[in-house]
Amino acid sequence: MIYLDNAASTPVHDKVIEEMLPYFGQQYGNPSSIHREGRLANMAIQNARKKIASLLNSDSNEILITSGGTESNNTSIYGIALQHKGCHIITSSIEHDSILEPCKRLESEGYRVSYLPVDKFGRVNPADVKKEISDETCLITIMYANNEVGSIQPIREIAQIALERNIPFHTDAVQAVGKVPIDVKELGVDLLSISSHKINGPKGVGALFIRKGIKISPLLLGGGQEDGLRSGTENVASVVGFGMACDLAKNKMDENIEHYKKLSSRLISRVLNEIPFTNLNGHPEMRIPANTHFTFLGVSGEDLIIKLDENKISASTGSACSVKVQKPSHVLQAMGLSHEQITGSLRLTLGTANSEQEIDESVEILKKIVKELRSVSPYRSKYNF
Amino acid sequence: MIYLDNAASTPVHDKVIEEMLPYFGQQYGNPSSIHREGRLANMAIQNARKKIASLLNSDSNEILITSGGTESNNTSIYGIALQHKGCHIITSSIEHDSILEPCKRLESEGYRVSYLPVDKFGRVNPADVKKEISDETCLITIMYANNEVGSIQPIREIAQIALERNIPFHTDAVQAVGKVPIDVKELGVDLLSISSHKINGPKGVGALFIRKGIKISPLLLGGGQEDGLRSGTENVASVVGFGMACDLAKNKMDENIEHYKKLSSRLISRVLNEIPFTNLNGHPEMRIPANTHFTFLGVSGEDLIIKLDENKISASTGSACSVKVQKPSHVLQAMGLSHEQITGSLRLTLGTANSEQEIDESVEILKKIVKELRSVSPYRSKYNF
Repeated sequence: MIYLDNAASTPVHDKVIEEMLPYFGQQYGNPSSIHREGRLANMAIQNARKKIASLLNSDSNEILITSGGTESNNTSIYGIALQHKGCHIITSSIEHDSILEPCKRLESEGYRVSYLPVDKFGRVNPADVKKEISDETCLITIMYANNEVGSIQPIREIAQIALERNIPFHTDAVQAVGKVPIDVKELGVDLLSISSHKINGPKGVGALFIRKGIKISPLLLGGGQEDGLRSGTENVASVVGFGMACDLAKNKMDENIEHYKKLSSRLISRVLNEIPFTNLNGHPEMRIPANTHFTFLGVSGEDLIIKLDENKISASTGSACSVKVQKPSHVLQAMGLSHEQITGSLRLTLGTANSEQEIDESVEILKKIVKELRSVSPYRSKYNF
Repeated sequence: MIYLDNAASTPVHDKVIEEMLPYFGQQYGNPSSIHREGRLANMAIQNARKKIASLLNSDSNEILITSGGTESNNTSIYGIALQHKGCHIITSSIEHDSILEPCKRLESEGYRVSYLPVDKFGRVNPADVKKEISDETCLITIMYANNEVGSIQPIREIAQIALERNIPFHTDAVQAVGKVPIDVKELGVDLLSISSHKINGPKGVGALFIRKGIKISPLLLGGGQEDGLRSGTENVASVVGFGMACDLAKNKMDENIEHYKKLSSRLISRVLNEIPFTNLNGHPEMRIPANTHFTFLGVSGEDLIIKLDENKISASTGSACSVKVQKPSHVLQAMGLSHEQITGSLRLTLGTANSEQEIDESVEILKKIVKELRSVSPYRSKYNF
């Protein structure tokens, strides 16, 4: 099996599992309890929080632990919006659904939302952000890197614009964390979402960096955990695992990035050189090194995935989260790709465990499959495949 | 160590851990992915969902998986309230904060909430529910069993009243599940919250039973998982573990209840007989068999917990979730207990792993500690301890 869908989810690292295990059967206290078991659980949470903070170069008390990227994104949007009823939000047209859907709900409740366009590489123009800002703007939320095509956004420039106008700036860094160094102090963002299961941690846990001084309303109310910002018994084992995953991501950042770059450039150059009528989508340089996203003209991405799966290669057309909806990617549409270009798209995303040999094997299989599918393609005569 | 705080959290069962393990490092697919890893993860979720449903005698498609009891409770309240802007909600004054806090927020947004009183045993009177119902009532939410004193509410009677008026009825069964047989078909409730970590499953996962035909608005928006009712990548390993915990809870229900009853009656009768100026709080019969809740007059529950902890016994005064707030229990206040009675309260909650010997040991230590604390109590002369 060759797993090339690491943007959808990643295997939990052995060291992460090892770190989590005692917190199931042995250290099972509720972190809110004042007895020894409770205090140990609470210490484990605080220790993990330090590791999460360290990966982002934030302070521990700026880290809100959530149930994952979706909750982090939802919390940012509702959390700020609830403080400024009916205000104006600026976002982009290529955000993840966990940003777009809350925005749509807010629109139905009387908020105004601007969805910025992107260029053909899937990048937002900071000048567009500046242009859209009004006195009612309460939040700017632009993702760090796109989950489908991997394009990295001009976050620093947008953060600067937001800072000048004193508007909170959130970035969904779920796909970026661990793949590019992120330093919230230097980057100038106010809120930043990350998820554990994209960096070899367990599913069901994530975090939201909230810069000191930024006020948000909680989404989940109850026992008042996480300083009242996220009620619910803390998911101790998963938080501990997430902490270790952050630790590993931090310590191996350079090595991992080097690995991703080597593999993705090999994959991209071989695919583009050896399979005709093929494009790389997203920005050629300003992209997540673990992401590759192609269009194979004249074939269907769905068919490609099924054939790859038969050949024991796991891939996707785009976001795993929107697979069941079977609608054309809103990201590729916003980039101006044609229906045909969208149809033929395939995302191959790398993980720490992938090898050069796996890349070469995948290219060979891909060549064979694309050829097969094109031999029965309705576009056959158009391109003279 | 003698762990008598099982209402706060429980150890994860070995079989649950075993069941979860493959879903960390080996079966790590995203359930939304269409390749083999994704399909296997999705099958695991559906299989676990069946087990969760089976514990409650519901259908699989009536089970919404959440990040825990707090999210289940919040989802019920907001989920119904959002469908009926400004409506009226009936709840009780002894609910968990994950019910009361969302109700308070809704009040600040123009909703009306009735908080029903309870009798001295901590029980709601169904006649009070009936009396409060108006044409604007959109939801009745009364907990199945109280998390502090363990009193079981007249759920069936309230469900009947709700049914007659065609009003959705939610019950927070987080403390009841696994301790009393729950059959949603026979009980007649429309929504029911449960949590995994209270029944020897992992933390960070729970479920909400939603009777077919009941419409709710989602709390978390995004990728549209859980039929659009709870977005976010499914927490596969934890859900699988939760499924196994439900399976164990179902298969061992009679045995566990027998065990709890035997241990709690021994604990209650020994404490009441051997430690003077002591009361059992909550209803003497209509209570969760795993719960005991006492008042030791003239001592402070906080001091008791600290002394018990020094003697390697884990206990609590009430809800773990409200420990840090250091306010008198709203449950005991609603039951009409005096400040002194509230101050001297201690909750000892049993788990499947507790033994008769542990109970006896705990009683001996408790006798010694209560005596010590009373010897320096300001109430010493009042009671002539």
